[in-house]
Amino acid sequence: MTDVLKNRTTIRKYTDQPIAAELLNELFEVACRAANTGNMQVYSLVVSQSATIKQALAPAHFNQPMVTQAPIVITFCADFNRFNQWCVQRDAKPGYDNFLSFMTAAIDTLLVAEHFCVAAESKGLGTCYLGTTIYNAQQIIDVIHLPKYVVPMITLTVGYPAETPRQVDRLPLEGVVHYETYQEYTPEDIDRIYEYKESLPESKQFVLENNKTSLAQVFTDVRYTKEANETFSSMFLDVLKKQGFFCQNNAKQ
Amino acid sequence: MTDVLKNRTTIRKYTDQPIAAELLNELFEVACRAANTGNMQVYSLVVSQSATIKQALAPAHFNQPMVTQAPIVITFCADFNRFNQWCVQRDAKPGYDNFLSFMTAAIDTLLVAEHFCVAAESKGLGTCYLGTTIYNAQQIIDVIHLPKYVVPMITLTVGYPAETPRQVDRLPLEGVVHYETYQEYTPEDIDRIYEYKESLPESKQFVLENNKTSLAQVFTDVRYTKEANETFSSMFLDVLKKQGFFCQNNAKQ
Repeated sequence: MTDVLKNRTTIRKYTDQPIAAELLNELFEVACRAANTGNMQVYSLVVSQSATIKQALAPAHFNQPMVTQAPIVITFCADFNRFNQWCVQRDAKPGYDNFLSFMTAAIDTLLVAEHFCVAAESKGLGTCYLGTTIYNAQQIIDVIHLPKYVVPMITLTVGYPAETPRQVDRLPLEGVVHYETYQEYTPEDIDRIYEYKESLPESKQFVLENNKTSLAQVFTDVRYTKEANETFSSMFLDVLKKQGFFCQNNAKQ
Repeated sequence: MTDVLKNRTTIRKYTDQPIAAELLNELFEVACRAANTGNMQVYSLVVSQSATIKQALAPAHFNQPMVTQAPIVITFCADFNRFNQWCVQRDAKPGYDNFLSFMTAAIDTLLVAEHFCVAAESKGLGTCYLGTTIYNAQQIIDVIHLPKYVVPMITLTVGYPAETPRQVDRLPLEGVVHYETYQEYTPEDIDRIYEYKESLPESKQFVLENNKTSLAQVFTDVRYTKEANETFSSMFLDVLKKQGFFCQNNAKQ
């Protein structure tokens, strides 16, 4: 089991082999065994298999080819809609139109996504997460018809692997694990933690290709720029408001 | 492997058996194999083992006994501090003081948490997630000294199980999985989806004990009230601002 977790790589190319409905069902049952807050299960999984829907979703994910090529695309959504409806039908007054409730649902959604991901990989499937889901959430809401109180959090493309990529680097553990309390990084710590990553041929290639003087500049100036981050921040906050998670007191925030 | 995922239960009571440092290291290495955005690894794990730190953390988690009883308590944190420092040291100007960057780090943090959780359980450990982390984030920040650009997202207590609880219920799959697009729930759907949960003796007991007329009211009036949610929403938004994730354009939001 630990091998599946330890040897994980992202798979972006898939064979034509479809995923059996029985397997998919089993994986969904297993995914829902992830821990969740108060057993409210405030999430929904939207499973897109039709070429039409996948094509409609693709632009929201900047047309990354996995979206149309994968046999299935799952959008994991924070969902208080179902729970709210249940409350109203049971003469209970839901108070979940706020930021904390959104965060609670988001957390539960991401735990389910990763539980699903590991389960799928343990059955020989390959997966790729798309972080673009929160960039263009409104587009996704429109395509898969998400009602108020439902927000797409992350997307997973799933299929049988048609590639066997090698594992990419990770920071040394001393870079990410702190004992007892957070240990601030000295400049020397930072140099040591990022040394291996910066030494990799592909990192040097990135720097050259982008005409930069450091790998960090590839991130700040090309891949994840301040301007794009600020634009997508505003867009996502607008989505949270529109979907009903910034009402009452929080509107003042 | 799937059995570990399928049979998961939350473990709240632990034996005195310590967790070997080698095993813990292996689990952290494995956890970092979770997918993450752009391989930035914008998260940190703070591992508290000392009785003093655990006792100091307990009030933030409403003194749930797992916090002091578990051999280790891990606070999984969204962390742009390390990445920002690296950028600055490499003559790159970080643009991550915004809501999107917080959400990106939060997502990556939760995927790592669940990857760790499954790995730990596959080695015979028991775990319990504490959602209270985002309720009292500032208290946690103070105890484990989290700097700007670091926000605690979720806490996991870990140890060898001293109990074997039965699995709790989950909604039927039709309640949480949608095909192609989101299918809105009719009142009849809601009745059917929640029927089993409402029929359970423990659910009926909850309703009785709390002097309510429905299980939903136990959630809205007792467990997750509008007032508490709004208070904790404001507190968590204040933390995000203080930790540096609502600067520039987003301040207007």
